[in-house]
Amino acid sequence: MKLTPIILSGGSGTRLWPLSTKEKPKQFLPLVSKNTMIQETLLRLDGLELNPTIVSCNEDHRFLVAEQIGEVSKQKPTIILEPVAKNTAPAIAAACFAAMKNDKDAVVAVFPSDHIITDVVAFRKAVAVAAKNAEKGYLVTFGIVPTFPSTGYGYVKTSGAEEDGAYTLEKFVEKPCLEKAEEYLASGEYSWNSGMFVFKASKFISELEKFEPEMCRLSKEAFENAAVDEDFIRLSKSSFEKIEGNSIDYAVMERTKDGKVVKLDAGWNDVGSWTALWDIQNKDVNGNVIKGDVLSFDTTGSYIHAGKRSIATIGLDNIVVVDSDDALLIAAKGKIQDVKKVAAEMAKRK
Amino acid sequence: MKLTPIILSGGSGTRLWPLSTKEKPKQFLPLVSKNTMIQETLLRLDGLELNPTIVSCNEDHRFLVAEQIGEVSKQKPTIILEPVAKNTAPAIAAACFAAMKNDKDAVVAVFPSDHIITDVVAFRKAVAVAAKNAEKGYLVTFGIVPTFPSTGYGYVKTSGAEEDGAYTLEKFVEKPCLEKAEEYLASGEYSWNSGMFVFKASKFISELEKFEPEMCRLSKEAFENAAVDEDFIRLSKSSFEKIEGNSIDYAVMERTKDGKVVKLDAGWNDVGSWTALWDIQNKDVNGNVIKGDVLSFDTTGSYIHAGKRSIATIGLDNIVVVDSDDALLIAAKGKIQDVKKVAAEMAKRK
Repeated sequence: MKLTPIILSGGSGTRLWPLSTKEKPKQFLPLVSKNTMIQETLLRLDGLELNPTIVSCNEDHRFLVAEQIGEVSKQKPTIILEPVAKNTAPAIAAACFAAMKNDKDAVVAVFPSDHIITDVVAFRKAVAVAAKNAEKGYLVTFGIVPTFPSTGYGYVKTSGAEEDGAYTLEKFVEKPCLEKAEEYLASGEYSWNSGMFVFKASKFISELEKFEPEMCRLSKEAFENAAVDEDFIRLSKSSFEKIEGNSIDYAVMERTKDGKVVKLDAGWNDVGSWTALWDIQNKDVNGNVIKGDVLSFDTTGSYIHAGKRSIATIGLDNIVVVDSDDALLIAAKGKIQDVKKVAAEMAKRK
Repeated sequence: MKLTPIILSGGSGTRLWPLSTKEKPKQFLPLVSKNTMIQETLLRLDGLELNPTIVSCNEDHRFLVAEQIGEVSKQKPTIILEPVAKNTAPAIAAACFAAMKNDKDAVVAVFPSDHIITDVVAFRKAVAVAAKNAEKGYLVTFGIVPTFPSTGYGYVKTSGAEEDGAYTLEKFVEKPCLEKAEEYLASGEYSWNSGMFVFKASKFISELEKFEPEMCRLSKEAFENAAVDEDFIRLSKSSFEKIEGNSIDYAVMERTKDGKVVKLDAGWNDVGSWTALWDIQNKDVNGNVIKGDVLSFDTTGSYIHAGKRSIATIGLDNIVVVDSDDALLIAAKGKIQDVKKVAAEMAKRK
């Protein structure tokens, strides 16, 4: 069995402003290696047997996607362009229709394009286990084994014993308060909701039809009436824009009786902020993560990302500095969540 | 009587790196107004009767000087180029020879090109008082009325009562420790050494001849053998480079019996660091001095100087941020003195 990767590249993350912008969101940036995040997403599947990749992205990013995938993949991808953003469920539905067109029994593996996974071997093993469960008709999600009581992630609760490498998906839980998060961590029954899934395309569509028949119908219509050329599949705007957008979690995964969880302990990180990038990377003796031409004196615990110019720091502690061609961010690590506000304000000014 | 301004522009201050560089030191930058520091130095003399200005500068800066003086002055300046830096005494000597060539009784007023004076009216009054004393044959220095017990400046001690607006210069004192500085402040007899002087050119030369005959002879020779063209007077290198350089304080002012001090209380600042610039400028409600396109959240007590790009700050306190085309400085205000180290290191890398 060959897996069909579906890469979701619709995000326009502003939490990594000023590098990540609406025009070039973080999945298109080389944030942790010489490859961009979307390239890393594909490259870490190397070694698995794969059909050509299906990518779902925003119309504006089509050339970025085509170019970046082209650089790392010999197989020509199927690139589906969303005329409007309708959250993950309709995007996945359209990609499933595309996968089924080639192979009605296709097993798809859905990955966001902007996550980091450091233990690629463990990851591939988990994907293979998930694929086996998917073939049996389960909708599999990956539950990230939590390493601390995070209040920044949603959780999935599992029940019962492991069977064929997977647990029964009991329920999804929203981002908890710290007290709850500590309980979750101690119980061993909760994992972080990763947003990565493996299932038969046909199974997903039949579940969607059951729970969200209108979304399913319009997604199908948008795919069937798509304008298709050599490079891109442009979903029909008139159909797709009628969809009431929703996430795959709400639309399907929380409602299905056939959910499974494969636990993943592979250095996963969703790179949700500059401090997340600081967290996961190698630090110098002063606890700094340094990128580019940086001269630092008396600087500790900081993330310093130089662009084209040199950066000198003196006497900083726990500071994020990120330089881009257009703008420069200097922020206390503890207040990094306000980058969203800054990015919004800067976009407004433009 | 007309005064002849002598502007000393030989400095290559690195304490305001990255804006101030060897190629374009701070006197050529518009740090506090739309005019550059050297332009401000000239403009604040408006209203006094002046002969054309004499500027002493480094060969490399000749076009900067010519252009910037040209922008604010109708009178064509005399620009003397130093083939090597020999501190202030030889530069002033050469400028005095130039002044005496036009008028053997010339009274010169010597100003560094990179100081700030906010109360221009008080300043001009003090210059006029100094000029009167200079005509009587005194070597006048301006003593800055201290506003706090600074350990960063040298001091001049005065004695006796004020006479014709001036005090007798008793002695110069090196930068003191805090305890001494507090004594000085309390005594009322000490002022900060400003590096600004008024005297007859001929008087300065006769004193220099007395205390430093070789320096005097070589300065004269360098001036007399200068290569003179339409725009610049290039001091003879073979003569000038033989001089053992020294400051006017050591060479003349500490030794003369004819020193006077005119006290100056006019918002003087030698702009010795980014924090000095923060000190003297208007602050927003959060105590920040902001230049250029800056968006600041939760930021207090900071100096933020944007260049061509936008800067966003989040959660900073007492931080200096200065952006230039080549480099970017982010420093804790309390460690701003280390900018010199950074500038030296950066220059080495180039």
